[in-house]
Amino acid sequence: MAKATGNQRRSRKTYQARVRALREDLVQMQVQLKESPFKVLLILAGPEGAGRGNLLNTLAGWLDPRGVETFSFHEPTDEERERPLQWRFWRSLPASGRIGLYAGSWYTETLREEARSQRALDQIGLEAERICHFEKLLADSGTLIIKVWLEISKEAQGRRLRALRADPLTAWRVTEEDWRHHRIYDRLARTAKLIRTRTDRPGARWTILKAEDEPTRDLRVGQLLLSRFHQQQARFERLTGSASPVALPPVKPLRASGRRLLRALPLDQELSAKDYEAAREKWLGRLNQAVRAALAAKRSLVFVFEGWDAAGKGGAIRRLTSAIDPRFYSVIPVAKPTDEEKQYHYLWRFWRQIPRDGRVAIFDRSWYGRVLVERLEGFCREAEWKRAFGEINDFEQQLTGHGTIVLKYWLHVSYKEQLRRFREREVTAYKQHKINAEDWRNRDKWSAYEIAVGDMLVLTDRRTAPWHLVPANNKRFARLEILRSACRQIEAALGA
Amino acid sequence: MAKATGNQRRSRKTYQARVRALREDLVQMQVQLKESPFKVLLILAGPEGAGRGNLLNTLAGWLDPRGVETFSFHEPTDEERERPLQWRFWRSLPASGRIGLYAGSWYTETLREEARSQRALDQIGLEAERICHFEKLLADSGTLIIKVWLEISKEAQGRRLRALRADPLTAWRVTEEDWRHHRIYDRLARTAKLIRTRTDRPGARWTILKAEDEPTRDLRVGQLLLSRFHQQQARFERLTGSASPVALPPVKPLRASGRRLLRALPLDQELSAKDYEAAREKWLGRLNQAVRAALAAKRSLVFVFEGWDAAGKGGAIRRLTSAIDPRFYSVIPVAKPTDEEKQYHYLWRFWRQIPRDGRVAIFDRSWYGRVLVERLEGFCREAEWKRAFGEINDFEQQLTGHGTIVLKYWLHVSYKEQLRRFREREVTAYKQHKINAEDWRNRDKWSAYEIAVGDMLVLTDRRTAPWHLVPANNKRFARLEILRSACRQIEAALGA
Repeated sequence: MAKATGNQRRSRKTYQARVRALREDLVQMQVQLKESPFKVLLILAGPEGAGRGNLLNTLAGWLDPRGVETFSFHEPTDEERERPLQWRFWRSLPASGRIGLYAGSWYTETLREEARSQRALDQIGLEAERICHFEKLLADSGTLIIKVWLEISKEAQGRRLRALRADPLTAWRVTEEDWRHHRIYDRLARTAKLIRTRTDRPGARWTILKAEDEPTRDLRVGQLLLSRFHQQQARFERLTGSASPVALPPVKPLRASGRRLLRALPLDQELSAKDYEAAREKWLGRLNQAVRAALAAKRSLVFVFEGWDAAGKGGAIRRLTSAIDPRFYSVIPVAKPTDEEKQYHYLWRFWRQIPRDGRVAIFDRSWYGRVLVERLEGFCREAEWKRAFGEINDFEQQLTGHGTIVLKYWLHVSYKEQLRRFREREVTAYKQHKINAEDWRNRDKWSAYEIAVGDMLVLTDRRTAPWHLVPANNKRFARLEILRSACRQIEAALGA
Repeated sequence: MAKATGNQRRSRKTYQARVRALREDLVQMQVQLKESPFKVLLILAGPEGAGRGNLLNTLAGWLDPRGVETFSFHEPTDEERERPLQWRFWRSLPASGRIGLYAGSWYTETLREEARSQRALDQIGLEAERICHFEKLLADSGTLIIKVWLEISKEAQGRRLRALRADPLTAWRVTEEDWRHHRIYDRLARTAKLIRTRTDRPGARWTILKAEDEPTRDLRVGQLLLSRFHQQQARFERLTGSASPVALPPVKPLRASGRRLLRALPLDQELSAKDYEAAREKWLGRLNQAVRAALAAKRSLVFVFEGWDAAGKGGAIRRLTSAIDPRFYSVIPVAKPTDEEKQYHYLWRFWRQIPRDGRVAIFDRSWYGRVLVERLEGFCREAEWKRAFGEINDFEQQLTGHGTIVLKYWLHVSYKEQLRRFREREVTAYKQHKINAEDWRNRDKWSAYEIAVGDMLVLTDRRTAPWHLVPANNKRFARLEILRSACRQIEAALGA
């Protein structure tokens, strides 16, 4: 190797000094981040040879590895393939206070697919849309997203690949696919630009960096991480500075039609025990077959049960499960989020429970808590629960888009019937555990809940994931109604 | 269908009344269980046609599904195959206060394998041993394990299979494998008996039930669940009645040789910055290749870092990770267990983090907390931490048995050197986050820790998962020592 000139030595010294200073700042940043209510995603993207891997190595070395998770997505596992596309990205998110470094990301597959076979613009548009939704949801909940596109010319790419291939220590890293990508450099660059343009949104902007000079590239990415962190922190300080008011504003409906829908529902159906039993056996048998057919077709089922306290969710779930082979379903009771769950987006804990193909998940209460209890108790800000309608629709659309059948039930009882049931629970020994002070408090907020439920029913009712409004003053009727509508929805989804 | 006689009607009525009473008791039991510090595993095993599936259905219908999880193990997924056998059972355990119903279990595979090809007694003995360890560990930590063997004669089995096949609704359930098992009924029964005998241990006893009459079978299993629950609860009440003393007994070594080992370790090695840098580059390169070779061979690596506060675990991990492609490792900082983790055995949260084949996990503190901080702070009972040595050896043996390379480091500094580092941390701005009151408190317990560390080093040092005792007064020397010994251990494991 040629001897370094005086200039080179000086510039290397300057570089090393800058790196030292940057590293101290970064470690300080991590100390602050650890106490912060947000997480950082640093996404590195770019063509082969732009040095994503090396950059990731450098950054991982600069940071305290205990606060960092690195991700790159290889071929999906079978557990991943049997769930909606987005599932693997949800399961890989870091907790609050931590940094996720992404050498591969939701962009990788899209770009790799494009290289395999050029696709229609529409298709790329759809994928960009999906990515935008995901990033918006994360950014809206406070996640700092830093996206870096490493740019390198076709000539430089060729040089890099040849250099890697020439060194026995790195030759293994250059694949046939890399060379193919090199040959179609221009086409890939155009597509990448298109995707960047479509996904360059507030809260998830792209930073484009010349990647040819490694030291410059690495320093700039480190500095970018630092400055974006401080901006984000300042933003959070402003937010927490204006503390939310203690008294909650009165609850106003977003859609008046929802409450009307609820109030118009006839609740007191007649159904004799004998008629019920005969019909129940028939519908249980039919449901058993429908579910079996769905699972055999490798579809998955997600049931959502919401309803007033004491509306009979538990009993309805028991009747439903009696028609399903217990080896294939699980019931997920949803209570207050745990410490761990609080470190993530509110949808995270539900994503975790999404069933594989051929399985059934039954949610006893669900993500709709966001627009019900969290809205009414002020557990989240107004902007947050308002945003949730769209986020939930998008979430369910990802499920149904994957082939999951989503069945949603609101069990509706009258104010008077609820009182009767509460009193009955209080005097029946084996039901006393089912009633507590909170139930009475919720009851006091009946009309506020009516508004929230109404909004939910109107704003999240979609053809592919419809709400079933179940009259439940008569328990038998309600249970039968659920069996019937479940049968019909599953059969329709299977095209039976 | 023939009309029921008076007797049959009466007996059906009696049965229904008994079921009603049992169901009320079971739901009451679940209410109490929810508040209890233990979980229940009900394992159903037996030949085909004995009705595991139907029994599971019945039980699932009797219980409140919100407190129940049902399991049956199908073909392992690729994520499961790439980890030790036991991983899939660990990930399926219910939380405290819940019931797991197992239609398939750790017995299923063993018996199915045996049916495929008769195996040597030794092999079956080994599997029984593995199962005993797992069940003992669960039972020791308070889990109620109920194992039911459903017995059915060869003739009755044949009748059941023919009846299932004849009904179009159930014909799909009878497979070719079932018929093969029927033909070799006697051999399978002998093996099953052998396995039952070997796994019939305190805390995990088998109950053998005649399974031919369904109503009797179902009632008896329900009653068994109930009575075993009440026994277990009574046992826990006795335990909590005798509250553990507030003052901890003085710490005495189990093995005096451990502390001697520690005290004999020379700590103040010399190593110039220049010599260090040259050697570091060499060993980092070699380690990079060794790790790459291990991952390419689909082995996984588990690093464990333990050591005194301020011994330099963080820095050592940073040097280590700089030799590994960040896409393949994750660093797992271990702090106090979360709410969720407390619902499980202390090893559960580490099982969750066990890497797939071809990946590296680096634990910054680990399961050894059980025999260090938990022992010394009285976070667990004496019997518990004493048991932990064996449990940990068994755990690591499952990892190494699967092919995982387990590398364990104790970073050792002198009492004096620790003081110097604590003081330095207090005066250096960007190190202040690394020192707090707890560190000083731990320092006061130095000699107690010395004993606990000594015991750990002696009792969990095994050929397949050895401890590396690292002199760490000189940070450079310690880092180099770790690189060197990691290289050697990995190369030896690969037979290089």
